[in-house]
Formats: sequence, structure tokens, C-alpha cells
Amino acid sequence: MNRTCLAVVLAAGDSTRMKSSMSKVLHPVGGRPMIAHVMASIAASGVSDVALVLGRDAEKVEKAASIEGLAVEGVLQTERLGTGHAVLMAKEAIARGYDEILVAYGDVPLITAAPLKAAREALAGGADVAVIGFHTDNPTGYGRLLVEDGELIAIREEKDATDAERAVTWCNSGLMAIDGKKALDLLSRIGNQNAKGEYYLTDLVEIARSLGGKAVAVDAPESELTGCNNRAELAVIERLWQERRRHELMVSGVTMIAPETVFLSHDTVIGQDALIEPNVVFGPGVTVEGGAVIHAFSHLEGAHVAAGANVGPFARLRPGANLAEGAKVGNFCEVKKAEIGRGAKVNHLTYIGDAVVGAETNIGAGTITCNYDGVNKHETHIGAGAFIGSNSSLVAPVKIGDGALIASGSVITEDVPADALAFGRARQEMKPGRAAVIRERNLAIKAGK
Amino acid sequence: MNRTCLAVVLAAGDSTRMKSSMSKVLHPVGGRPMIAHVMASIAASGVSDVALVLGRDAEKVEKAASIEGLAVEGVLQTERLGTGHAVLMAKEAIARGYDEILVAYGDVPLITAAPLKAAREALAGGADVAVIGFHTDNPTGYGRLLVEDGELIAIREEKDATDAERAVTWCNSGLMAIDGKKALDLLSRIGNQNAKGEYYLTDLVEIARSLGGKAVAVDAPESELTGCNNRAELAVIERLWQERRRHELMVSGVTMIAPETVFLSHDTVIGQDALIEPNVVFGPGVTVEGGAVIHAFSHLEGAHVAAGANVGPFARLRPGANLAEGAKVGNFCEVKKAEIGRGAKVNHLTYIGDAVVGAETNIGAGTITCNYDGVNKHETHIGAGAFIGSNSSLVAPVKIGDGALIASGSVITEDVPADALAFGRARQEMKPGRAAVIRERNLAIKAGK
Amino acid sequence: MNRTCLAVVLAAGDSTRMKSSMSKVLHPVGGRPMIAHVMASIAASGVSDVALVLGRDAEKVEKAASIEGLAVEGVLQTERLGTGHAVLMAKEAIARGYDEILVAYGDVPLITAAPLKAAREALAGGADVAVIGFHTDNPTGYGRLLVEDGELIAIREEKDATDAERAVTWCNSGLMAIDGKKALDLLSRIGNQNAKGEYYLTDLVEIARSLGGKAVAVDAPESELTGCNNRAELAVIERLWQERRRHELMVSGVTMIAPETVFLSHDTVIGQDALIEPNVVFGPGVTVEGGAVIHAFSHLEGAHVAAGANVGPFARLRPGANLAEGAKVGNFCEVKKAEIGRGAKVNHLTYIGDAVVGAETNIGAGTITCNYDGVNKHETHIGAGAFIGSNSSLVAPVKIGDGALIASGSVITEDVPADALAFGRARQEMKPGRAAVIRERNLAIKAGK
Repeated sequence: MNRTCLAVVLAAGDSTRMKSSMSKVLHPVGGRPMIAHVMASIAASGVSDVALVLGRDAEKVEKAASIEGLAVEGVLQTERLGTGHAVLMAKEAIARGYDEILVAYGDVPLITAAPLKAAREALAGGADVAVIGFHTDNPTGYGRLLVEDGELIAIREEKDATDAERAVTWCNSGLMAIDGKKALDLLSRIGNQNAKGEYYLTDLVEIARSLGGKAVAVDAPESELTGCNNRAELAVIERLWQERRRHELMVSGVTMIAPETVFLSHDTVIGQDALIEPNVVFGPGVTVEGGAVIHAFSHLEGAHVAAGANVGPFARLRPGANLAEGAKVGNFCEVKKAEIGRGAKVNHLTYIGDAVVGAETNIGAGTITCNYDGVNKHETHIGAGAFIGSNSSLVAPVKIGDGALIASGSVITEDVPADALAFGRARQEMKPGRAAVIRERNLAIKAGK
Repeated sequence: MNRTCLAVVLAAGDSTRMKSSMSKVLHPVGGRPMIAHVMASIAASGVSDVALVLGRDAEKVEKAASIEGLAVEGVLQTERLGTGHAVLMAKEAIARGYDEILVAYGDVPLITAAPLKAAREALAGGADVAVIGFHTDNPTGYGRLLVEDGELIAIREEKDATDAERAVTWCNSGLMAIDGKKALDLLSRIGNQNAKGEYYLTDLVEIARSLGGKAVAVDAPESELTGCNNRAELAVIERLWQERRRHELMVSGVTMIAPETVFLSHDTVIGQDALIEPNVVFGPGVTVEGGAVIHAFSHLEGAHVAAGANVGPFARLRPGANLAEGAKVGNFCEVKKAEIGRGAKVNHLTYIGDAVVGAETNIGAGTITCNYDGVNKHETHIGAGAFIGSNSSLVAPVKIGDGALIASGSVITEDVPADALAFGRARQEMKPGRAAVIRERNLAIKAGK
Repeated sequence: MNRTCLAVVLAAGDSTRMKSSMSKVLHPVGGRPMIAHVMASIAASGVSDVALVLGRDAEKVEKAASIEGLAVEGVLQTERLGTGHAVLMAKEAIARGYDEILVAYGDVPLITAAPLKAAREALAGGADVAVIGFHTDNPTGYGRLLVEDGELIAIREEKDATDAERAVTWCNSGLMAIDGKKALDLLSRIGNQNAKGEYYLTDLVEIARSLGGKAVAVDAPESELTGCNNRAELAVIERLWQERRRHELMVSGVTMIAPETVFLSHDTVIGQDALIEPNVVFGPGVTVEGGAVIHAFSHLEGAHVAAGANVGPFARLRPGANLAEGAKVGNFCEVKKAEIGRGAKVNHLTYIGDAVVGAETNIGAGTITCNYDGVNKHETHIGAGAFIGSNSSLVAPVKIGDGALIASGSVITEDVPADALAFGRARQEMKPGRAAVIRERNLAIKAGK
């Protein structure tokens, strides 16, 4: 298909029912602004030019919409006079003479490329207007698609429908493709002689037909056309998006014991034969190789987990966490901006930040890399085959050599050579019988209250 | 409506199918006993006098039911002879001559004020009996509401119903309002000439009509009338209640990425534009201001989170945790009975209890306030702009001044003045090559096993 | 029923759509290989001899299938020529002359004993073939069970069905029981004159009838017959299994506030009046006594929790954790191979491994048992009524006597007698004004960047 196409995306809504400090199209789905999802599908349908009709938060919305591969041109809508009027905000761009105009909405983010392509192909096949419809069990409130002999003869609003028309369950989504050469003429003919005095895009069907043109309807799954007017609907959209991505990952060979408890980001990558246990949250920027295991109650963002590595339960990997093959990060451990070497173990109640941990090194429970002095961050380098005793504090910048051994409970402030033993802890002292005395005294204090 | 009303609430059930050590009406929903939910809706419907029919755990049930704004009078039911008999346990109270008698059930906790009001209004409009019904797709087992010309002519039990009557999907919930002046007379006419020999409240419809009176039915959503007979049904009630509250919060402007994983308490307050990530549990007594973020895997109870504050992931706020604007409590941190000042950071693996942390102070990873001596609790006061090095132990009672600096790994037992540096840790010592020797010895021990 | 029965279980599938490195029947459901669930139901239906038709991962599958109470005999299927052919792989076993042959599938793991028994009883009642069917709202794609006068007259494949036959919603599950004395004869008559050239077990119905025999259909719930072809279907099976087990536990008297967030293993045991809060994962080998409370975000495996004990939130119990009555393991605590005595408290950010903690002992926040020297594990014994100050390191092997007191922040390397006070920490030193100087220097370094 070498035909040129301009997408006109309506994103000017006030979003009042969202009760939000920002435009609804900026609210994220799968960690990515809603508007960017729409743009990604437009790009995937083979379109590269977009006129973006803006209102609230215009600058931010245009920025969020400007994804790679698209040339986005913002136009400001100052009045709200209906969808027909909104599309005409892009008049200048339309006037450049594209073969096709594709109308989409910033708050209908689950649309995929397939129905957009189908609508475009319908134009290539001779239609002047191609409306994207959906079949639903609950058509109440939607305009019905009235089709005769394969042609769409009208979009009938519920209030104007006969009983027979109301029984139709194929409904108008609002998305459509319009013949680009005729679009300005068709759009200019939309009137506002109706109860609200607005210009309705849906009138295009009858206008095109009245001029001897042809309108058709193409189909899309109802779930792709879910719109967002308040945060309860936003949550529904998020759920549908998550279900779609989880399913894609599962059929590609990822095991999820309880997929409904796994939350993915738009860019989450997980390899075949990886196992994701219940209750795992993937923030942006995570890649998990095949054969890795992410145990329950884990939280990952900006992290890489190599094959055979184990994460959690109760682990948090923050940006820059990079686990090599067979590495293990266990419960109540936080890893940030750190390389965890092949087969290394960070298993219990530990903080590793701004650090390198060598292969096969064991980090004891309760170890802390003290990487921050209140102003600057410093690095900790731990060699291979080292053993860091439990409850140690490694005060960065510091280097621990290969095979070195840190005694439990030590504070390490100086570099430790390879194979050396280091300790930094006080000698144990004891006072026989003293615990009993202290206990009595404390009980007396309590009683004295 | 200035009409007087007495609610009669039946809560005497044995709850045997709950297999519980306590009465089922004491089991909590949203962290509040089931019976208290019923009472709250009764109060919200404008009723202030309640006769509570008690059986098992009478004292505890009466206490749980005695919520603010209601005068609750307990009456003990010793025999179980049907609902008609149970309501008559409140004979003395009814005899005081209320305009209306409202019958509700302790184990139907999702009822809201609206249908209760509708039933009361039906009496004010001239009915003698107003039954609350619900429409359902699965009427099997329920009594059907037979309505003619706007009047309820009978409640037909399934076993007595004709095929046409069985096709009716409007069913009896058991809740009803009764003309208060006629109630004792009507109730006394209920007979027990039936298979079980019980007195059925549903007979009131035909009794009232036989005396020339009028019965009507009012409607309530099926979900509000879900009853509780075992713990699987209790879980269904909890889910419906959670869904209702989540929806209310979302449409009020709270974002929940995965509402089905957020668990609220009856008194949870969350402001507009707050963001609640997946897997958050709110125990009782939590307020979150608008614009705050509660990250995944957080658990809060009795806590206050101010605007712009950040909690989690993996944070636990216990009663008395009070986060000021922009404060941050991060992963694997527990805060109890403590003020966390404006912009202060408690980010990693830390326990702060019985403490005050000043504005902009940074608490390093692994810090512990040692607030308990085995008998008494003591306080820790940390000033503003201080820096507590990682893995420090602050042994309460102790005061750290503004801008003070505690070296990592220190045990602090004495007060630290403002801007002072304090440390309490041993000097590092090293034994070159010793780690290799120890490793060999340990391997030999292992082999010797 | 003293009739002998051989179960033939088909488990030779290639599992290509699972995209897995192992046979699909090895994938776990409720923590137990799918094939073992099938075997358990076969055993529960009174069958003890099984011929297991193997393909991929034959050895591992046979091992996983060999559960207690069953004599399992593996036979290798090298060609894939349809279900009729697959069952004949067990020809030798069948030839031994059982009264009944029961055909089941390794990838249909939710089947319970009831329909298997029903099929067997149908044979005892005179049928030659008894097919297990299920009623479904979506019969598309399934073979329909055509029944006349109580006899199954054919299993009609969708493509061969008339419109009337397609309207039938009782479908073939593939599972069936066959008269054992006639089975070899009947099976040998199955032909492969069809589009795929395969031998279909479903032909047995018409073959048996053509020989004057009788076929019948018995019913099973659709959910029990869910099959597994990819990991999305595996997740559905896991969900159905979890729902079944949760429901069983709830009606037996266990409270689950949000059952859909509680994940059970096949062997999880929970007593009456136990409370399980949201988001709890039970790995294998856990028993929780009645009256115990498992708080939110807890992860247990191989652990025992006695009556009145409290776990979590955010607790991890690993194999060998044994909590006595009234013991408490709190947030960010890990317990492994350890006895926690009656009323003992391990409440905050603690690791207890290879240890014994005496009754009523209090373990302070941040305590670590240093049980590993990099090669060997060592034990820590703590007496009753002891108090371990926060942030202490107990370097095993070590013994702390009854009533002993460990000062906060201590490293304990030597045994501590009963009632003694022990400390192992440095004395606090201070440098007045020094924090301000260091801060200035660090800020200068930062600015110098």
C-alpha cells in the first residue's frame, strides 16, 4: 500500500470526570502515557504523519505523543463543538492532499494496528468512508451501524433508532478512515442542526452517500475500543492491556502461575521458559532471560536478569541492577546500579548499591554497601569468590579483593587485599548476672510509671 | 420525613456453617464487624432506634452493633421458630408505637440506606408492608415477588410456585418495612401451619391484604442483598464491598493501577490525585493526602501520609506513623509511632519506632532505632538535616542534633550535639592471606564429615 | 466394587505449543506435576494399576507419575497415530485381562475421582463403553454426545454434525471406560480411514454398538476437563485448581479475606478459625494450625505454624521453620530451619537460620544469626526469656543462656551464660562541629564535578 495517510488524533478533552491534575491522555497504561499507545498503533498501521488536536496540557501531550517513527504536528482546539469540528482543526494538514485521513482518539488506547489497516484498505478498495465498528452484548447508548448489501447506510443514534435498529449489536466506535481527497469537502458539509448544536463526524456516512459515494464498516474487538472517562475506566483499560500482554508472553513460553497478579510494563521482555511466580511487578526497562525465575513478591525496574538467575521472593531490583547467569538476589534485598556476578549470592536483608560483586561471591545477611555520604555516591568493588560476613557495612569507596573474607558485623572502611581476612568489630565483653539486675531495674521503672 | 421508626435487626443465628468460634455477624468486612455495616446503613436511612435480636455471643454482638448515632436495645432470642417469631422478640419495643418497623439482618451487611429509605417511603405513601426485592438471573430457591397493578399480592415460595410464577426473576430479600401501628397485630397473626412448623415473616403480605391493607415491593441491587452462611460467602461479601469502595475512590480521582489488588478498610481516606500501585493493603485508620504515592507491596495501618510523600515499595507503616509532605519511606522499612519530617528519607531496610525524624534528614540503609529494652519503650529524637550512616543502631532514649552526622555502622548510646560527627565502631584490622587459610580449614572440616 | 481395572494414561505429547524445555505433563499445578494430579484421582477412584504411555521426557514423567498407592508401568509411544493407537501401546497390560480399562490424559489434570467412578460403575451396570462428557455453553470444536433412550449412539465430530446435532451442548471429554474383556478386540477394530489417517478412540462407541454392545455417557463438570496446550491454558488450570482448594478450605472454617490472592500448594493444611490475609503464598509442606494468623504479604514453605502464632506481614518462613504457640514472626523477617519457642518474638528485619529460640525470648530488630562461614553451616541456641538487642550479630556456633541480655549492636562470638549481659561494640566518640566541615567538603567535591 503506497497510499499516503494522515492520522488525525483527537486529544483535546478536558478530562473533568478524571478529576485529575493532568489531561487524561497522559495517564499511563502499562507505564506509558495512553496517547503513546494510540500513536504506536497508528505507526504500526503504516502511517507516519499525525495531526494531533490538542487542548489541556497541550505541550506535554504533544511530547508524550511524539514517539519514534511519527511526525507529529500539534494543532490547538480552543472551542469544543463536536468531533466533526475537532477534526477540522487539522484543516491545513488535511489540505496537503493525503490519499487517506484516519481519525483516532487519544483516550481509546487499546486499538491495535489491525482495524486501522482494515479501515485504510477499505478506502483503497473504493470506499469514501470506512467506520470501525464493534460487536457488543450491551449496545445501549451506542450509535448502531446499519448495513445493507455490504454498505454502511447510516450510523443511527440510539434516540433516533427504531426497535429493529436498536436490536442491532454492531456499534460505532468513532474511529474511521476518510478519503483524503474528498475529506475537506465532506467535513465542511457537516451541520450542527441538532439538540446540542454540535458537528458530528458520524454524519459523514450519510453525506458521502448523498454525494454518490460509498461507506463501509470494518470490525474490531470490543475490548480494543474501550474508552476512558474516569479512573475506574482507566483501571479497566489497564486490566485489558495487562491481560493482552500476559497472554502474549504465556503463549510465547513464559510460565505465570497467577498471571492476574503479574504487572507488566510496555517494554517488559521475558524469555522462553522463564518462570514468574505470583505477585510480581515489572516497572519499565526490565529484561528477563529464558530460564530465569522471578519468585513471588518481587519488584523490578530497569534491571536485567540473565538465564538461570533467581530473584526473590521479596526482592527489589532497581535501575542498573544486572544479574549474571545463576546469580541470586533473595528476600528483603535491594540492588541498585550494581553488577551481580555469575553465581554470586545476595540472599538476605541486604542493600547493594553502586557496586560490582564478583562471580561466586557470597554476601552475608544484613550486609549494607554504604554508598552515600549525604552528598555524593561512591562505589564498592567486591572481587570473585569473596565472602562478606553477615551484618557488615562496606563504606564506599572501597575495594574487597578476590577470595577475601570479611568477619561478620565488621565495618570496612579500607580496601581489603585478595585472600585477606578483615574485621572491624569490638571484642565481646560479659557481665555475669547483670542481665537479671537490669531486668529488675527496668521492671521497677515500669511499675513506677 | 418526621415519622418515627424502629429497626428490628435479626442477629441471633448459630452460624454453624461458618465453623467459627464466634457469631458470624462479628466477622469483619472491610475490617469492621458485619453487624456494624448493617447498623451504619440503618442510621444513614434516618433511623435511630434499633431492637437487636441476639443469640450467640450476645454481649459482643450488641457491643459491635452499638455504633455512634444509634440507640441499640438488645433482646435475647432463645428459641429459633422462624423470622416471624424472631421479630416478635422485640415486642416490647414495637409496642411503644413507632410509625414504622424496619426489619433487617445482621448477616446481610451490604445493604445501603437507599432501599431502606425506599421501603420507609412506601409506608409513608400508604402501604402496610413494603418488601425489599432484587432482580436476579438465578432466582432458583428464592421466594418470588408476585406483583399486580403495582401491588405485591404474594411472596411465593419456589416449591409452591407455578411454572409462570417460577419464571419471575424479582425475588424476596427478607428485608421489609411494616406499618408500626399495625405491626403487632399483623405479626401475631402469622401461623406455623407449615412443613417446618415455623413462623414466616413473608406471610405478612397476604395477612395485610386479607385485612384490606396494601403491600408493595421496592427494589435493591442484588449485590446489596448477598447473605453470609459460610466463609466462602463471607469472601464474596468482602469482595463486593471492596469493589464498591474502590470504585467510589477511583471516580473521586484516585488512581489505582490494579484496583482488584488494593484492599481498603471501612475508614480508609485517600485524596484526589493520589496514586495507589498494585498490591497495597490498608488496615484501619489510614489517611493518604492527594498527590501522595503508595507504591506496590505496601502495608499501612493507623498512618497518615501527606501530599507528595512516597511510600514503598515493600514499606510498612504501623499505627502512629506520620509522614510529612515529601517524606519518603522505602523498601523493607517499618515505621511505627514516629513523625517523619518534611522531605526526610527512610529508604532502605530500616526500623524507626517511637521516634521523631527532622525535615530533610537522611536515614541510611539498615538503621535501627533500638526503642525497647525488653520491658520499656524509649524515644529517639533526630533533628533536621542530619545524616545517619548506614547500619547504625540508635539506642533510645537518645537525641541526635540538627545537621549531625553518624558514621556508618555506629552504635549510638549518648546524645549527639548539632553538627557533630559521632562514631561508635571498631577500627578495621587485617590478616593478609588468612582468608585462604580459613577457607582450606573449613573445607577440610566439611570433607571430614 | 471388586472389579479389576487398568488405567491407561496418555502422556506422550510433544507439548510443542507449550514452548517448554520439558513435557507439559511435568509442569506443576498447585506445586505438583500435572501428571501426579491425574494419578491421584485415578488412585482415589479405586484403581491401582496404571499403564502410562510415554513420549518426551519418559523417565521424568514416569517418576512424577509414580505416586504412592499406584503400580505404574511405562510404555513408550514412538509414533503418533491418534488416541486409539496410543491406547494400544498398553496392549500387553490390557491383555492381562482386567475387568475394566479406564482411559485418562496426563494433560487433563483437574479430573476428580467422581466421574472416573461413575464411568466404571456404568461398565459394572452393563455398558461396554462409558464416555465422560461435559455440558458447555461453548461446544464449538468439540465432539457432541448423541444420546437416545439413555444410550450413547455416537460421538459426532463438529465437521460431520447436522445443525440439530451442533445444537447439542453435551460434549466428549476423551476420557472413557471400556469393558476390559472386550477392549483389545474393540480397539483393534478402529480404522484410520479419515482425513488425518489417525486412529480415533471415539470410534469405539459405534464399533461397540455395531457388535451389539452398549455405550453410555456419564457427566463431569466442564472445569474438571480443562486441557492444557499452552501456558495460558496452564494458568487457567492453575486458577481453577486454586479456586477449588480455596473453596474447600473456606467452607471448612478458614477465613480468607481475599481468596483470589492466596496461593496454595497441593499439600497445604490449614486449621479451622485460621485467618489468612490477602497476598499469601504457600509453597509445599506447610501446616497452619487453627487460630493462627497469616498476615498479608507472607511466603511460607516447609513450615509449621502453631495455634495462636502470628506470621507477617512481609514474613518469609522457609523449610524447617517451626513456630510454637503464640510465637510471632514479623515484617522483613526470614526464618529457616529454626524452632521459635512459645510466645517468642522475631518481629523486625531479622534472619534466624539453623537456630533454636527459647520461649518468650525477644529478638530485636535487625538481628542476624551468622550461620554460614562460606563452607559450613553452624547453629545458634538461644535460651528462654532472653533479650537480643537490636542489630546484633550472633556468630554461630554460639549459645545464649536463658534470660541473657545482648546489648544492641553487638557481635557475639562466644557463648553467653544465663542471665549474663554481653556486649561487643565500640565506645561512642564524638567530634564537635565536624559534621558541618565534612558536609562542606563533600559539597565542594560535588561542585568540583
